[in-house]
Amino acid sequence: VVRFKGGDPFVFGRGGEEAEALVAEGLPFEVVPGVTAATGAAAFSGIPVTHRREAVRLTLVTAHESIKEQGPQVRWDLLGKDPHATLVGYMGLSALKGAVARLLDAGLAADTPAAMVENATTSAQRVVRATLAGLPAEVERVGLRPPALFLIGPTADRAERLDWFARQPLAGQRLVVPAREDVLAALLEAAGAEVLSVPLPLRPAARAAIGALPLTGCVLSRPAEVELLEDERTGAWWRGEPVAFCRGRAVASRARGAGWPLVEELESDASAARLVERILDRGCRGRL
Amino acid sequence: VVRFKGGDPFVFGRGGEEAEALVAEGLPFEVVPGVTAATGAAAFSGIPVTHRREAVRLTLVTAHESIKEQGPQVRWDLLGKDPHATLVGYMGLSALKGAVARLLDAGLAADTPAAMVENATTSAQRVVRATLAGLPAEVERVGLRPPALFLIGPTADRAERLDWFARQPLAGQRLVVPAREDVLAALLEAAGAEVLSVPLPLRPAARAAIGALPLTGCVLSRPAEVELLEDERTGAWWRGEPVAFCRGRAVASRARGAGWPLVEELESDASAARLVERILDRGCRGRL
Repeated sequence: VVRFKGGDPFVFGRGGEEAEALVAEGLPFEVVPGVTAATGAAAFSGIPVTHRREAVRLTLVTAHESIKEQGPQVRWDLLGKDPHATLVGYMGLSALKGAVARLLDAGLAADTPAAMVENATTSAQRVVRATLAGLPAEVERVGLRPPALFLIGPTADRAERLDWFARQPLAGQRLVVPAREDVLAALLEAAGAEVLSVPLPLRPAARAAIGALPLTGCVLSRPAEVELLEDERTGAWWRGEPVAFCRGRAVASRARGAGWPLVEELESDASAARLVERILDRGCRGRL
Repeated sequence: VVRFKGGDPFVFGRGGEEAEALVAEGLPFEVVPGVTAATGAAAFSGIPVTHRREAVRLTLVTAHESIKEQGPQVRWDLLGKDPHATLVGYMGLSALKGAVARLLDAGLAADTPAAMVENATTSAQRVVRATLAGLPAEVERVGLRPPALFLIGPTADRAERLDWFARQPLAGQRLVVPAREDVLAALLEAAGAEVLSVPLPLRPAARAAIGALPLTGCVLSRPAEVELLEDERTGAWWRGEPVAFCRGRAVASRARGAGWPLVEELESDASAARLVERILDRGCRGRL
């Protein structure tokens, strides 16, 4: 039995409780560490959570915990006393206002750099940056939604220079590309898109992957591909209103006939570079 | 250009400094997050660094930093005031005594569970567990060496039950197995050994991998394999005094003739199960 978890099983993943239950039943197990959300969000937002002489400590808290009544509370009073540190709050959206107020109370400077990252590491990632004091209002203004975590500390404003992920030409694009087009898929990915390279007809695992976040486009090169996606496109699990980027007139006609609301027609031999250009022309960038 | 780092580039990896240098030169880059040593060591020593109602905060520090004179210091005084937390100290060996003294001064209970992990996640992993107050003496008694990190917090004694890694039959074994024997390699790995499945003759990359830590054994199934390893075995990069587990009399004779000091002869058709048994009989377990 493999129990998959996002992130690391022992970092706010309840892996400890599950392992204890296995031991109690006498069942052997292994624990496989993973990339926890804090470091994933840091890498993809360009915030080095440690930096020599600037942030010499990294603390992860589950900010959510602190708004429950029972159990040990996060010691915001202590955390707010060390400016040379990065503080990352998991599930931080609902607890943000309270956490910021307590950190300010404890003496953390109001102009401490801070950021909140929604849907970290995905095509739907959105990053809001502000000062510590200004973060709650800015997060509310932009309308961030869970899952989101906050990063507070002196290095958070380095994202202004180091946000490589958001600067990629196709940042924010989430494209379905038939698995047959593997070279094209690799080139679109290199340009910053999240590419779902899936065999057609779709299998259940591919549907689950596609449905995890809204799509922005589908790259279609054959009329048969339009047909194979036609029933899928109207499924309840299908999210977003992706543009059909159709290579060739026949493919585009088929897509229009089948009722795709957004169809872009390209040359039948359109290259990856041409496709990138058209996606950019279409203006369907990420949500920020 | 790919710059490989152990762990996560932004967690005590100086990735921020390197990224700033790239930006200054106008060079594009990507940052790929990784499994940082703290979570790797936690998973492989069976210490859940967070646990509901027990440890609601995880702090990573580079303990080394605190013994330098310049720059911001780790605030042990603050860290010692929160018992519902796990504190992980990277490069913690030289700083351990000082860190423990300051944590105790700050009020952290002397009987707080604690552990130090050497060579985390590898076949050479050694774990020392003690109370916070007792950890420095125990680490010295056992003679731990860098690289090592410490974990301090209420969940550290859960390792008594959750140390799945050290309980595997072949824990501590580091075996060279010719790549041809891929099924055997998988079975030995499943029994807990670190298996270096390498094509013969060895290529430079294989030598680098083998030389990273001491070997405990080589599984040899053909006289030609003994020959191909003969010149390697005496190389300066070769570490440890591995046992030659030889399948068949001809292979064993060859190994003895070639001067392997430790030779174990098995049936020429010895199965993986038989091999596991012989490795255990040989008693060459890990170092603790």
